[in-house]
Amino acid sequence: MVSNLPADSVGLVTQHKAVFEEPLSLDCGQVLPRYELVYETYGALNRDRTNAILVCHALSGSHHAAGYHSEHDRKPGWWETCIGPGKPLDTNRFFIVCVNNLGGCHGSTGPATTNPETGKPYGDDFPVVTVKDWVRSHSRLADRMEIKQWAAVAGGSLGGMQALQWAIDFPQRLRHAIVIAAAPRLSAQNIGFNEVARQAIMADPEFHGGRYYDHNVSPGRGLAVARMLGHITYLSDDAMRAKFGRDLRGKMSYDFDEVDFQVESYLRYQGQQFVQGFDANTYMLMTKALDYFDPAADYGDDLSTALAGIECGTLLISFSSDWRFAPERSVEILRALLDNEKPVSYLEVEATQGHDAFLMPIPRYIEAFSAYMGNVAQECAP
Amino acid sequence: MVSNLPADSVGLVTQHKAVFEEPLSLDCGQVLPRYELVYETYGALNRDRTNAILVCHALSGSHHAAGYHSEHDRKPGWWETCIGPGKPLDTNRFFIVCVNNLGGCHGSTGPATTNPETGKPYGDDFPVVTVKDWVRSHSRLADRMEIKQWAAVAGGSLGGMQALQWAIDFPQRLRHAIVIAAAPRLSAQNIGFNEVARQAIMADPEFHGGRYYDHNVSPGRGLAVARMLGHITYLSDDAMRAKFGRDLRGKMSYDFDEVDFQVESYLRYQGQQFVQGFDANTYMLMTKALDYFDPAADYGDDLSTALAGIECGTLLISFSSDWRFAPERSVEILRALLDNEKPVSYLEVEATQGHDAFLMPIPRYIEAFSAYMGNVAQECAP
Repeated sequence: MVSNLPADSVGLVTQHKAVFEEPLSLDCGQVLPRYELVYETYGALNRDRTNAILVCHALSGSHHAAGYHSEHDRKPGWWETCIGPGKPLDTNRFFIVCVNNLGGCHGSTGPATTNPETGKPYGDDFPVVTVKDWVRSHSRLADRMEIKQWAAVAGGSLGGMQALQWAIDFPQRLRHAIVIAAAPRLSAQNIGFNEVARQAIMADPEFHGGRYYDHNVSPGRGLAVARMLGHITYLSDDAMRAKFGRDLRGKMSYDFDEVDFQVESYLRYQGQQFVQGFDANTYMLMTKALDYFDPAADYGDDLSTALAGIECGTLLISFSSDWRFAPERSVEILRALLDNEKPVSYLEVEATQGHDAFLMPIPRYIEAFSAYMGNVAQECAP
Repeated sequence: MVSNLPADSVGLVTQHKAVFEEPLSLDCGQVLPRYELVYETYGALNRDRTNAILVCHALSGSHHAAGYHSEHDRKPGWWETCIGPGKPLDTNRFFIVCVNNLGGCHGSTGPATTNPETGKPYGDDFPVVTVKDWVRSHSRLADRMEIKQWAAVAGGSLGGMQALQWAIDFPQRLRHAIVIAAAPRLSAQNIGFNEVARQAIMADPEFHGGRYYDHNVSPGRGLAVARMLGHITYLSDDAMRAKFGRDLRGKMSYDFDEVDFQVESYLRYQGQQFVQGFDANTYMLMTKALDYFDPAADYGDDLSTALAGIECGTLLISFSSDWRFAPERSVEILRALLDNEKPVSYLEVEATQGHDAFLMPIPRYIEAFSAYMGNVAQECAP
């Protein structure tokens, strides 16, 4: 442990890579001839290999869920609030694995990867991947790591959807699904926002139909607009009011190039920051995976039927001010599990932070998550 | 009346133009040396000139609020549900005036107008106009028409804000303010959405800093993205669910150029339709007028103080599923009026249609609006 990093952090971490030469059949009908997955792990795998937890990332996440890549790193991984010694995903007790999803832009095979058939980056030839595809690819990583059964699969938002899909597709391979701030499928409004984000990216002339790598450019302005829009939907109206109100940065400028309100400044900054580290094609793919996620569709549009075969316990958490995936959406999953008399714990956390709350150190949330995981840890003990 | 037009319509209408050679001082500090306003009127002005109603339009509206421009017109004016014989704004009893706002793109002086100083379209040299500027310019039209006092000033959304501003700035010139689906000022979230819309327009390479007229192009893709985003915020989540659900247009395409869901198809169509008849610079101006609207700011941020001097009666209407300007926002205005013991009627209409409800023929809404206007008509009688 490096001294200047917080004591409750996993500290310095490095990434691993797994190369899969076996082809992967995808939902879209295409086959990925080979692929690589990058991942990080925190904590130690026990002798029985029973204490492993898979953490799944959301739209803009990556495999870097906790810790720091160097002592000079200013920001830890995206779920630092929940992963580390003494935290809900306690690295003193669990072995945590987080994988960059296929189609991602942080090292796993994705649109910027060289397509072996053409010798050029995949670009828009990279297949549209689904949550089920990710789960299938992650199961191969579990095989490789000789993890027969996860103690839990956990995630927030799109990550929670992956946890739910794991429970459906591989019922014997996880003991618990931790599904936070998620939904059983997107609403028309959710899809609408995603479509506007994609249109903003595709409208950027530097998008070049997704083949922008060949032109040494990137559709940064379009991606920034998409991200700004996303940000509004991650925050609650109350959170934005508390954070910015209607505060002017100075006087009214009467000029469109200037920034008048704090909220504009914040959104522009978020957009600018984001495009420096994220790939537009990945953003397109992730939003489409969200749109397509709909486990009930395979079961006559009946979520209860879809969840009838699961064998794990489930922890569902929602946040009162989350209007992207509101508590009612978690309750849909709750009802379907109760219809099947499956073991499930549900908590709606009072929180003002909107959808982003799942990343925040909200005491009620952390306590409940920790308590549940404490029981999960008991089961892992030899 | 032309036979094939509905009997409860004002029928065929034509527009008028008023030219103002007197300079207009604007809030931004600039002066508009001359300007033109186009407007339509419906019904007849009585001898005492006491039955005139000013209707103010919202973001994407125009002076064409009711009736048809030709027998082949497929769509009537934007507030056809509320203006016409026997309707709330009853043209058998009232003389209705609707003006295209300064900065508009339907005939009044705006960014596409030739700037007398340069001989070229104003473009981004057109000054950023405010709700107060519009009210001031409309008051000059009232002078010109020799209307000393409006029976009412009425509008929905941004139009309702103009009605409120009229009540503040010219207390003796209106007997009633009809403020529908409005807010006393925008929230940070509202401003955020507007900012994303503007960024989408400015990101379009055909925007040319607002001087696109000189290049014979227009930033249609950016404007379409802005409009698609707007549309999501005009509809409620429930309305979108009822209208589209998650209905696929066919099978999942796994292709970003294709349309998968009905909601995507609808939004793309709305975006495409809109850009054919609307100017991007006007969209920019209208969103900024919304952002800047804040009558309380002139009165120590106290809305009650801001409304202390008004002399008219006020009708406030909100819609339960409107999340753009939610009922709570109308209640803020209500409270400030009650603080001052001003006469006010308030109705929250149960409606699933979201912000767009103010344009819809919702029985409870139409009945209440008609009842109020019936009393207003009584006062106009000689």
